[in-house]
Amino acid sequence: MAPHKLCMIPGPIEFHEDVLAAMSTPATSHVDPNFIPVFGESIEMVRKVVLTETAQPFIVSGSCTLGWDMMVNLLEKGDEVLALNTGYFGDHFSECLEVYGANVTTLRAEVGSRPSNEALKKALGEKKYKMVTVTHVDTSTGVLSDIKAVAQTVKSISPDTLVIVDGVCSLGSEEIRFDEWGLDIVISGSQKGLGVPPGLSVVVASQQALEVYKSRSTPIVSYYSNWNKWLPIMQAYESRKPAYFATPAVQLIYALHASLKAITSQSMDVRFAKHREVAAKFRETIRDLGLKTLAQCEECSANGMTAVWLPEGIEIPQLVPALANKGVQIAGGILNGLAGKYFRIGHMGISVMEPERGHIDKVVEALSQSLKELQKA
Amino acid sequence: MAPHKLCMIPGPIEFHEDVLAAMSTPATSHVDPNFIPVFGESIEMVRKVVLTETAQPFIVSGSCTLGWDMMVNLLEKGDEVLALNTGYFGDHFSECLEVYGANVTTLRAEVGSRPSNEALKKALGEKKYKMVTVTHVDTSTGVLSDIKAVAQTVKSISPDTLVIVDGVCSLGSEEIRFDEWGLDIVISGSQKGLGVPPGLSVVVASQQALEVYKSRSTPIVSYYSNWNKWLPIMQAYESRKPAYFATPAVQLIYALHASLKAITSQSMDVRFAKHREVAAKFRETIRDLGLKTLAQCEECSANGMTAVWLPEGIEIPQLVPALANKGVQIAGGILNGLAGKYFRIGHMGISVMEPERGHIDKVVEALSQSLKELQKA
Repeated sequence: MAPHKLCMIPGPIEFHEDVLAAMSTPATSHVDPNFIPVFGESIEMVRKVVLTETAQPFIVSGSCTLGWDMMVNLLEKGDEVLALNTGYFGDHFSECLEVYGANVTTLRAEVGSRPSNEALKKALGEKKYKMVTVTHVDTSTGVLSDIKAVAQTVKSISPDTLVIVDGVCSLGSEEIRFDEWGLDIVISGSQKGLGVPPGLSVVVASQQALEVYKSRSTPIVSYYSNWNKWLPIMQAYESRKPAYFATPAVQLIYALHASLKAITSQSMDVRFAKHREVAAKFRETIRDLGLKTLAQCEECSANGMTAVWLPEGIEIPQLVPALANKGVQIAGGILNGLAGKYFRIGHMGISVMEPERGHIDKVVEALSQSLKELQKA
Repeated sequence: MAPHKLCMIPGPIEFHEDVLAAMSTPATSHVDPNFIPVFGESIEMVRKVVLTETAQPFIVSGSCTLGWDMMVNLLEKGDEVLALNTGYFGDHFSECLEVYGANVTTLRAEVGSRPSNEALKKALGEKKYKMVTVTHVDTSTGVLSDIKAVAQTVKSISPDTLVIVDGVCSLGSEEIRFDEWGLDIVISGSQKGLGVPPGLSVVVASQQALEVYKSRSTPIVSYYSNWNKWLPIMQAYESRKPAYFATPAVQLIYALHASLKAITSQSMDVRFAKHREVAAKFRETIRDLGLKTLAQCEECSANGMTAVWLPEGIEIPQLVPALANKGVQIAGGILNGLAGKYFRIGHMGISVMEPERGHIDKVVEALSQSLKELQKA
């Protein structure tokens, strides 16, 4: 691989050599007999990653944000939505749902925390919601939501209510048990825990969600995000037949296939455990450096990324270049009003699963050194 | 490059080695100082490809079809649209516009032909249209529209009416003079004349189109396709600043940059002429083989692809594999009801501009041989 700064932001993450090699697959028709099983198997492997037997994956050319857009298939004007908000991405997901007619009620936690199960129960008692949305890991804060508990609470109080998980920064790095936990939607994309360059939207929909989509009474107000277009395509490729709505991103799908093959070659439990172990150790290091994470408790801390408050007297335009000079790219903050006060580091994918690469050690080393230099200065 | 079937369908086309190498650029943050100018310069070079000084390019993660979706920014419920239809893609573009509230009146030509200028004049005299849509090259038929004449007629009769060009299968292979001809929108994507793997939607909007978008009176009913989101991003990267709405497809943009650099390294006129020359010669060969193109006249024949009627007694499931066995991928038909009756061959990008690669010779050779074999059988 060409020498480059180690990309330790919370996505895009570092890519395996096989994934990058697949990116430069020579020109291949989207209906070529060689490509059809690659797309079909990718759909099947997405199912394995979220541990579902029956849910329907969608793999579509676009960014993760396009997955938000696909909720247009479930929404009709005036639908009530309850949004569990843990940061910037929760705000914008809600904004997207409102464009498609939702009335959004927000349960907002203070920065670094998540809405309590009691608050959720109370809210569900007050109104009937068509869907409850929850950001599994809000990339702006590194707060991990307990989506198992959320789904359990929602389904026990209101079984018809759909549980919609924004899994952009969790799919492939956090435990997701789609069927067992009763999830209805997981939205993600290629460039986070799946370890593939950006450009693919990945969405998984339960049969219950598909029923809601199929039984809607008003037309879907979108063309590109419309499941009427995409569902037959996904079904065709999965049964190893070509189909056409819009040209798929062939090379990105080859890359996704390469990464999914590696990911599904071992138990997802091993992957979840390894991300937990590395993240816990990383937070320990952060504490040892005298720093504090935005996430206020261990169990609400993401396992694929960490957001850390800057120490007094050091600013983002100092810290980020200091690490860049040491060959490591990290990210600044993104929360409105607080963006300049913290930084974010990703620890996902091959950086976690292949410790022999030394990625985590390198970012820790670069961070400690940079802090020392800047504190001296 | 790995050995592979020569991809001579009308997109995706064959990619230059530099473009494929750029596809496997190692993980790079979308706000990395190395990436920002790559994105910014790509925006600028798109302007050069369509010969405009003032229009606004959008480069967004998605397929070409996403460009149709972006017309949501210009449409309000009940808007009158006149659609010049030359095939399958014209039908579906209209379907997309109807989803976003358009009342579409269609001028439909018989297969292989295009609506006459007289018919256009008559239609424009009967009703005031917000936009006229025209498919520059309908990939289903290989018919080339005279967008210069269309724009001239539209602007002389109704200067406020927007001229919307579906340039999916023309950008980079057909003459487009955005400013000189008074175009308002050109919609395309990465995998056709631009010679980049699929996954990027490329749209160019005139200042007049942006005025219509800015002065609309109802909200834009889309989130992912919304220019309120994308315009600030394009402007930021062009002024070499990072910005964030959704993670761009970094590797695809590196690949686009590589291809645009090659394309803009010579006059666009040279490129247009070369595509015309190769296409004319290709059609001559087709006639020499005793075959007929769908396009009914030279001037309405595309220069980046050709659709050809199958000879009596030979079927697509025979011809396509026969060429595949000779290492060449061509495409079947796609027009409803006629799909099995013709085939399509692309001649764009490096296959045309770098004749020393021998791509056109190889497809001609494989086609002649296959026809001989099948006619004997």
